[in-house]
Amino acid sequence: MKVAKELFDPEKSGAILEGMRVELITTGSELLLGQVVNSHPGYLSSRLATMGLDLARQTAVPDGQEAIGQVLGEAWGRGGVIIVTGGLGPTSDDITREVVAGFLGKPLEDRPEIEKKILGYFEKRGLVAPESVKAQAKVPRGMEVIPNDGGTAPGLFWEEKGKMLVVLPGPPRELAPMFEKYVEPRLRSYARPAEGMRVVRVTGIGESAVQERCEGELRRLGFSAVGYCARPGQVDVRLRGAEVKLLEAGVKRLREILGAAVYGEGTETMEEVVVRLARGAGVKLATAESCTGGLVASRITDVAGASEVFLGGWVTYSNEAKMRDLGVSAESLAQYGAVSGAVAGEMAMGARRRAGADWAVSVTGIAGPGGGNANKSVGLVYLGIAGSEGVETIEKKLVPERKVFKAMASQVALDLLRNKLLPQLLPTSEV
Amino acid sequence: MKVAKELFDPEKSGAILEGMRVELITTGSELLLGQVVNSHPGYLSSRLATMGLDLARQTAVPDGQEAIGQVLGEAWGRGGVIIVTGGLGPTSDDITREVVAGFLGKPLEDRPEIEKKILGYFEKRGLVAPESVKAQAKVPRGMEVIPNDGGTAPGLFWEEKGKMLVVLPGPPRELAPMFEKYVEPRLRSYARPAEGMRVVRVTGIGESAVQERCEGELRRLGFSAVGYCARPGQVDVRLRGAEVKLLEAGVKRLREILGAAVYGEGTETMEEVVVRLARGAGVKLATAESCTGGLVASRITDVAGASEVFLGGWVTYSNEAKMRDLGVSAESLAQYGAVSGAVAGEMAMGARRRAGADWAVSVTGIAGPGGGNANKSVGLVYLGIAGSEGVETIEKKLVPERKVFKAMASQVALDLLRNKLLPQLLPTSEV
Repeated sequence: MKVAKELFDPEKSGAILEGMRVELITTGSELLLGQVVNSHPGYLSSRLATMGLDLARQTAVPDGQEAIGQVLGEAWGRGGVIIVTGGLGPTSDDITREVVAGFLGKPLEDRPEIEKKILGYFEKRGLVAPESVKAQAKVPRGMEVIPNDGGTAPGLFWEEKGKMLVVLPGPPRELAPMFEKYVEPRLRSYARPAEGMRVVRVTGIGESAVQERCEGELRRLGFSAVGYCARPGQVDVRLRGAEVKLLEAGVKRLREILGAAVYGEGTETMEEVVVRLARGAGVKLATAESCTGGLVASRITDVAGASEVFLGGWVTYSNEAKMRDLGVSAESLAQYGAVSGAVAGEMAMGARRRAGADWAVSVTGIAGPGGGNANKSVGLVYLGIAGSEGVETIEKKLVPERKVFKAMASQVALDLLRNKLLPQLLPTSEV
Repeated sequence: MKVAKELFDPEKSGAILEGMRVELITTGSELLLGQVVNSHPGYLSSRLATMGLDLARQTAVPDGQEAIGQVLGEAWGRGGVIIVTGGLGPTSDDITREVVAGFLGKPLEDRPEIEKKILGYFEKRGLVAPESVKAQAKVPRGMEVIPNDGGTAPGLFWEEKGKMLVVLPGPPRELAPMFEKYVEPRLRSYARPAEGMRVVRVTGIGESAVQERCEGELRRLGFSAVGYCARPGQVDVRLRGAEVKLLEAGVKRLREILGAAVYGEGTETMEEVVVRLARGAGVKLATAESCTGGLVASRITDVAGASEVFLGGWVTYSNEAKMRDLGVSAESLAQYGAVSGAVAGEMAMGARRRAGADWAVSVTGIAGPGGGNANKSVGLVYLGIAGSEGVETIEKKLVPERKVFKAMASQVALDLLRNKLLPQLLPTSEV
């Protein structure tokens, strides 16, 4: 399958160079029926951001000739690059191919070489291809094909003066490599490397407090618009500007003002920072979880290479498990209760000792909706961090909603590890 | 704060009753910069679906007077209910309040009773309110206020003939209770209870195979359009129709054709099914995880009330941990390797015995990107399920991408538990 190299040739499409505008149309009724989270806007915009390109708008529409055709027409009128996702699959509700063909006025043609590749895909897996997959071998006349190396539905390319159309399949694991391998190289010729964005990620401070402490300083430096985004256990501060020096100065100032509350930059997650720091320090980690139920361990093990630093963890959801596996004392459980600083401390120490880890973190709290009482309400959590010099525990009152609570508590736990793993700062101007 | 009861009075807005169309506009640059996943479309559309209302379109635009104003104008022209989220916060990039005021031509007015409530919110938490939060006490003249019991930014309501505008804050934990408590009761008067949707959730079979086995039968029953949505380890089949009897018949037929591959209906997750079945059967569960790193345990403990059935789990990321905590034999590790059926079986048996559980599930595999070799490639996984009658193990080859792999492997693990927990089917017409 040939991919049109000339398709995104800047010489050919000068009109697009001015005011490069990218729109995303995500199709699929499931996106509008509360069944799935639409991950395409996040993924594609973060890829575009690396090229200094913005997503100007994202629209989701249900499957259906009318809905897709209407929104495609509107976006087409605004011009620029239009990325359409979804509806290229083999099932009867996959109609994007037909809608695009109709919109551009191009008949669908069978492409035997694509059908052959699709059949080969099934054969390689020892499966018989259902008849329905052959619909994916149809291409609107004259459109270029974007190969799909991880699935059966190829993507489609089209361009005319001032407009560019990229059609990609919906499954993220097919879309992502196709975008990175075949679409990005062409978009890169339009990238604006001088226009940059820096994101500073902050934990442990609320959104208004972050702004109050930083915005004046950032404006003095010359930033006209600063963006903030709050999520459970995290605030992102976004700086944009054309000058790399200004961006650097902004990030430096934020780090000075907020200190260790800045845990990372860009899209780096807290767990990536923890694994990176542990690797750098050559230390091993362990976890002991009650209310977070394995989420801290799961976040650590989301990071490629986590096995170099993570020995393992315990999910001790019962008192018996806390005593048996982590050596928590029956006395502490009786005297202070499972949700207490004493038990958090013993959990962390037990996990560290038993795993043979350098650092172990523990979490015990009340995730709700049940389990709270007059003294200890839903949202209360104790965390412990154990190292060679002993154990420290903290108490937090978090949002009393099960999933938000788990997310926040896991963030605090990872942040405890991070703070212990940070290289010792020099008490000089280095800081 | 008064909430306009009359606002969604069907008598008053008869025009809307015909062809109730709901659009969602999500604002916030972070949604278009790859920093956060936009959870509003999923949440709001699932709430709307319970009322038989569809989300006809969802649009995301960055912060900014022009972008928000433009898309609001377009949606306004199409009519119906328009829900706008985000940009009501205290920081400088929160401008939705101003844009809405400008669009409707209504000046912003200070509302002292809202300011008092906001200051009380901070006081109750022992915090000093930053000056910036006072902006949230401004309301476009004549607009109704939707109380925010979980945060500081109130929402806004507006209605005129044939159009309805609902403005809600961006943080999901503030938006959700506001929508359910104050917006839903008004929308319910427009609900179409006769128009229904049923979703059947299938695991272990691919999307094309599901269609091939079911679509003909469903069409014969009278369904004109059937929807499919594939995700890691899962395919959702969507049936829509005006007749409850037809929907019931469709679901029944799907269950007959697909058997135990149907794990649930609606929005019920695999982990919810597992916890529900374990509760019903009065049995206790445990987990032993290597490559999934705690994700199976974390999914189980996402379910409220999981503590009634879940005793705990082990994340044994090293060989030492597998031997020490689960009693895996050094011989099996040496002879078959950590990623093997033998080790998966010993892990499950060890976890069951040690936790004193009725059922224990185990996972050991290669999540990648490293760790694969010529004999055992990334994506290979062994799972074990141990009960009173012994242990069974299975081998699977999953997608070799770390996070997708973890999601799929955890789904298979939960499905193993589910199959053991299913009530014994009677070999009669009951089935």
